[in-house]
Amino acid sequence: MGVAKVPGNSFGQAFKITTFGESHGKGIGVIIDGCPPRIPLLNKDFVWEMARRRPGRGPFDTPRMETDQVEILSGVFEGLTTGTPIALYIHNRDAQSKPYEILRELFRPGHADYTYFKKYGHFDFRGGGRSSARETAARVAAGVVARLVLEPLKITIMAYTLEMGGIRAVRIDPEAINRNPFYCPDTDMVDRMREMILKAKKEGDSIGGIVEVRINGCPAGLGEPVFDKLSADLAKAVMSVGAVKGIEIGAGFEAARLKGSQNNDPIIPAGFKTNLAGGILGGISNGDDIVLRVAIKPIPSIMKEQETIDRAGRPARLKLQGRFDTSAVPRIVPVLEAMVAIVLADHYLRSKYGQLIKQLNG
Amino acid sequence: MGVAKVPGNSFGQAFKITTFGESHGKGIGVIIDGCPPRIPLLNKDFVWEMARRRPGRGPFDTPRMETDQVEILSGVFEGLTTGTPIALYIHNRDAQSKPYEILRELFRPGHADYTYFKKYGHFDFRGGGRSSARETAARVAAGVVARLVLEPLKITIMAYTLEMGGIRAVRIDPEAINRNPFYCPDTDMVDRMREMILKAKKEGDSIGGIVEVRINGCPAGLGEPVFDKLSADLAKAVMSVGAVKGIEIGAGFEAARLKGSQNNDPIIPAGFKTNLAGGILGGISNGDDIVLRVAIKPIPSIMKEQETIDRAGRPARLKLQGRFDTSAVPRIVPVLEAMVAIVLADHYLRSKYGQLIKQLNG
Amino acid sequence: MGVAKVPGNSFGQAFKITTFGESHGKGIGVIIDGCPPRIPLLNKDFVWEMARRRPGRGPFDTPRMETDQVEILSGVFEGLTTGTPIALYIHNRDAQSKPYEILRELFRPGHADYTYFKKYGHFDFRGGGRSSARETAARVAAGVVARLVLEPLKITIMAYTLEMGGIRAVRIDPEAINRNPFYCPDTDMVDRMREMILKAKKEGDSIGGIVEVRINGCPAGLGEPVFDKLSADLAKAVMSVGAVKGIEIGAGFEAARLKGSQNNDPIIPAGFKTNLAGGILGGISNGDDIVLRVAIKPIPSIMKEQETIDRAGRPARLKLQGRFDTSAVPRIVPVLEAMVAIVLADHYLRSKYGQLIKQLNG
Amino acid sequence: MGVAKVPGNSFGQAFKITTFGESHGKGIGVIIDGCPPRIPLLNKDFVWEMARRRPGRGPFDTPRMETDQVEILSGVFEGLTTGTPIALYIHNRDAQSKPYEILRELFRPGHADYTYFKKYGHFDFRGGGRSSARETAARVAAGVVARLVLEPLKITIMAYTLEMGGIRAVRIDPEAINRNPFYCPDTDMVDRMREMILKAKKEGDSIGGIVEVRINGCPAGLGEPVFDKLSADLAKAVMSVGAVKGIEIGAGFEAARLKGSQNNDPIIPAGFKTNLAGGILGGISNGDDIVLRVAIKPIPSIMKEQETIDRAGRPARLKLQGRFDTSAVPRIVPVLEAMVAIVLADHYLRSKYGQLIKQLNG
Repeated sequence: MGVAKVPGNSFGQAFKITTFGESHGKGIGVIIDGCPPRIPLLNKDFVWEMARRRPGRGPFDTPRMETDQVEILSGVFEGLTTGTPIALYIHNRDAQSKPYEILRELFRPGHADYTYFKKYGHFDFRGGGRSSARETAARVAAGVVARLVLEPLKITIMAYTLEMGGIRAVRIDPEAINRNPFYCPDTDMVDRMREMILKAKKEGDSIGGIVEVRINGCPAGLGEPVFDKLSADLAKAVMSVGAVKGIEIGAGFEAARLKGSQNNDPIIPAGFKTNLAGGILGGISNGDDIVLRVAIKPIPSIMKEQETIDRAGRPARLKLQGRFDTSAVPRIVPVLEAMVAIVLADHYLRSKYGQLIKQLNG
Repeated sequence: MGVAKVPGNSFGQAFKITTFGESHGKGIGVIIDGCPPRIPLLNKDFVWEMARRRPGRGPFDTPRMETDQVEILSGVFEGLTTGTPIALYIHNRDAQSKPYEILRELFRPGHADYTYFKKYGHFDFRGGGRSSARETAARVAAGVVARLVLEPLKITIMAYTLEMGGIRAVRIDPEAINRNPFYCPDTDMVDRMREMILKAKKEGDSIGGIVEVRINGCPAGLGEPVFDKLSADLAKAVMSVGAVKGIEIGAGFEAARLKGSQNNDPIIPAGFKTNLAGGILGGISNGDDIVLRVAIKPIPSIMKEQETIDRAGRPARLKLQGRFDTSAVPRIVPVLEAMVAIVLADHYLRSKYGQLIKQLNG
Repeated sequence: MGVAKVPGNSFGQAFKITTFGESHGKGIGVIIDGCPPRIPLLNKDFVWEMARRRPGRGPFDTPRMETDQVEILSGVFEGLTTGTPIALYIHNRDAQSKPYEILRELFRPGHADYTYFKKYGHFDFRGGGRSSARETAARVAAGVVARLVLEPLKITIMAYTLEMGGIRAVRIDPEAINRNPFYCPDTDMVDRMREMILKAKKEGDSIGGIVEVRINGCPAGLGEPVFDKLSADLAKAVMSVGAVKGIEIGAGFEAARLKGSQNNDPIIPAGFKTNLAGGILGGISNGDDIVLRVAIKPIPSIMKEQETIDRAGRPARLKLQGRFDTSAVPRIVPVLEAMVAIVLADHYLRSKYGQLIKQLNG
Repeated sequence: MGVAKVPGNSFGQAFKITTFGESHGKGIGVIIDGCPPRIPLLNKDFVWEMARRRPGRGPFDTPRMETDQVEILSGVFEGLTTGTPIALYIHNRDAQSKPYEILRELFRPGHADYTYFKKYGHFDFRGGGRSSARETAARVAAGVVARLVLEPLKITIMAYTLEMGGIRAVRIDPEAINRNPFYCPDTDMVDRMREMILKAKKEGDSIGGIVEVRINGCPAGLGEPVFDKLSADLAKAVMSVGAVKGIEIGAGFEAARLKGSQNNDPIIPAGFKTNLAGGILGGISNGDDIVLRVAIKPIPSIMKEQETIDRAGRPARLKLQGRFDTSAVPRIVPVLEAMVAIVLADHYLRSKYGQLIKQLNG
């Protein structure tokens, strides 16, 4: 049985979050240490983002119902942050551990059961425990605060489903995103995405996709040489979300096939002529839109029978029952937005713009 | 002018490295804090890896000549590590700052000049200073020590040029990799890669590519929930290397188009039937090969005339002169290997395998 | 108005605690990240230590009544720690903010009001907010878990009131400590301490004292060169408790007047002949009893009229009303024990004894 | 044999130092990460402070001769810091390992030999290796840079020998300090200190003392709640220096015997009427002089025969030969000044004054 010597439940240096809680425990939460004082913050500020992440938005999501109300336990006085740690807590209300009883002995393929067992000698068969996507509710709550920290910069962080089950959005219409349950930015593709997801659901299968995140209005200068590059921290933040298998910035993997003369964005007095860099040069934001794409694998919980083994290593057949999403994609959209906001808030407080916040909020 | 409040020149928690030095300063180096005691370490242990990264290996690399001898300043006594910080230092010998004089006023497109200027109010016109690829020599030196730390695990870390300038290796022959200047694992593609690079050089242009890293023999259990997942730290480590624009693990972006039934690697008593996960589940190594691919942009230093601006924001034309690689790809191969080794050594020391090292090295 | 760039609400590297909450907010709590898995932990484990710190134990303590029940929000499943973050929460029930209204404008001498105002541009007039001694309840709760982590080592951590109001214990009788409200180890001095405190209370004044902490059974080898010496971390932990103004280890300030031949503890096969070092050599535990003494200032909340200024800097007279302890000493005893336990647990997990825990708890 | 899981060779969060090197290795050094850009820094800036710490200043110091020239390896360009890591290196020139050969098997009482052996299974018999006071040369070099960071604040940090061998300075005359080899601030006591030290030397013995540090001009507002109090970080910094056995701030241990009405410094429009707090309230600087006293034990290397054991645990007699100081006190004075400067620079960069530096150095 192993013991982690340096725990890994915190993220960030200046805007530092520590999440806690398990899928089927009492609840989940997050401590934010480093939020500047005097920022207005109320319980209701969390409602919109929590609703976006919440299960049960459509026929394709898990029917698990969570109101996901965020309770502020500390750090706020008379509606303003005080500069002390902000503790946010979300009760688990609808956890049904029963269907998981069958899993006490079997590892679910594609899940963390096997690796947790190898690492810790046990695993939380009740929905994955700490490795459950439920943990991301705490991240979304922290993301709400991160966005408030960023407010003086007038940044827009917009994530959307660029592709799901192979169906790719052609047009990016910001207005469209929140008008469909898939956060698809292309109204013409919504029906095709729906078909694709219904088909997979019917087959007892699941689908993946690609989420694109676009940050507008980020000033030049965020990011620290040499290891804490903005790109490096974005990559870590995004990869720390379950189901993510890849990230690219700007032209990304396509850049590998371009020539320097094609890929170097020419600089003009107004900024950059093109944005193949995706808004980051040398690990530091360049003032242009930051653009990144994230690969999401198909959700591993499927209804089809699967080959697996039990704790003793004996072969077994597994047919899952329970309440699962058919794709992680839509619900991961607000989570990725939150993680990006957290990285930006952290770097914003780490860099020279820290002075701005004082003038504006002071 | 900004001031970074939390500096970013360190990486790792248990095997912690801090690099220092600039491209055209006296030299570069690294402090390794956390290396276990009693590991044999001599100056000559660095020769092979430093040679692999060193410029001047072929007609396509910068003719800048560096012997890149690593000097051990501390942490080793009678040929054994002592458990105290290991300081490694590499003198800069052949830095020619002169050709850069012309750049005192102009930002090189695709480089960090613009963003450093925006962040700090100045930039090191002599080859990028701290943002130069020269800094990676220190990482390669640290990687050598990381590999020694990992030795008890009998891990093999193998990186190679999967693709360069659009030419893709078809076969992966480990024997081939070090037999050609491109670290191409497919002998049949070496000539085509050479052609491609010569063509680009002739045109005064540059090319990018994709590096694949494959880790064999990594035990299950490395990686910490929830933010310090092995995948998350690999992503950060890799993205912190200049010129990297994307990373994917296992099926990566391809997984976005698969169904759960296709992407879930079935578990059998012997391990996993397939390895679309790329050796990592829930952020923790699963005992299978860890596989990742890294997108490298074309080197931004090209001989073609480019559009840019000067420090005052006025439009300008820039035609670079100097000694540049035509592609970053080959020389980045040992750097990525080093970064991967550093991440693994860090997680190895953080997790239960720490006890192994004691038994084996104690 | 300032913004802290690197927040300071966490302590520890391997056993890492982050406290949150304010004196007159909803409650206070702590997240423990890094606690090993499979340690039995129940709500009732906190009762004894929380009771020792709780106000209202005698006529000399603040009559504020807090049940101080610790609620485990996460990290425990079926009565065992899981290795995930343990969130502990204590509701504030009896906070009376009203008497503090008068303090909205005046700085209390000897308190943090003035410095918080200078730093943040505001201060929490309701009992000090975050700077209140109430925050230490979270530390005591974390200390309970730290002690469980240390259990395999069979360490005894014993703190007691060596001196209060100038009355000094002569004999150290471990049995006596918990039999009187002052944690005085010398039964003969209990009445004199009581007289002293009643006299001060009657005068509307307060008194300070010295707490001694004695750790028995700590193995040699805890502490890290060169900055994270065990002595250095103990000093920081102890000094981070409000009202502490000094710490000495072993002979402490007395050692300054000894000669080397007097102060060097001779080494014999059985260990050390004397223990003037206080159990720590070169920052590392030497296997002998660790002994430290902590100076506690008189509590600054007194009923006598005091000279002060208001927020605008105008002179004022202040006569406090409210519920205050007459001395911080007795209630600080369990807090110092907790902090010492936290430091030891942290270093225990950082050092070679980490392997022991696995064998014993695995 | 143990393995430290989280290395302890770094100090600071925003102004972060990592030292390396051993007493009898090639040299010692320090990396400073987080120093703001554009601060003038030359090799000669180190001369004065290095000379103050250097051995061989008087007949009472070790005759080991070190020129202790500080070489700047990185982070400075054209005489200005660049904001990148500053690497400082000091060659060891006069290390004589020979006299230590006899110590290969015996633990020196009062030294770290015994505890290093217990922790690591080996110890550096050549003068203590990493635990040697020689490591403090790197701290003094870092302190020079810290002072430059603090320059905009016009802070004065003054340390002096308040007491040595029982002889206590009565008057504090800043002019006197650097005019005698003991850094004694009271000219009348210099001869008596000299006598005391000569007497001890003759007896083959050693003496300790008390160093007082006084910081003038520190603005209110430095220090972070709740663990990273300015007082807590000062305590850790000071205790991390070998030979230190105690620290007190302001009235310190004396405060334990005062009443609240005596110890509460009344606040007046001009500041504070008295300064028993020693310039720190609630862990945050209050604008008054910061005053701390540090207890230094007698140097453990004495010429008298001592009782000890060998590695196998067998009793032995030890009579040291070599070059030792008779008291650590004078040479520790600049080291403590340096550590205090480092803590202040760190908190200065962490807190609101960060904006000042930009305006002044920008």
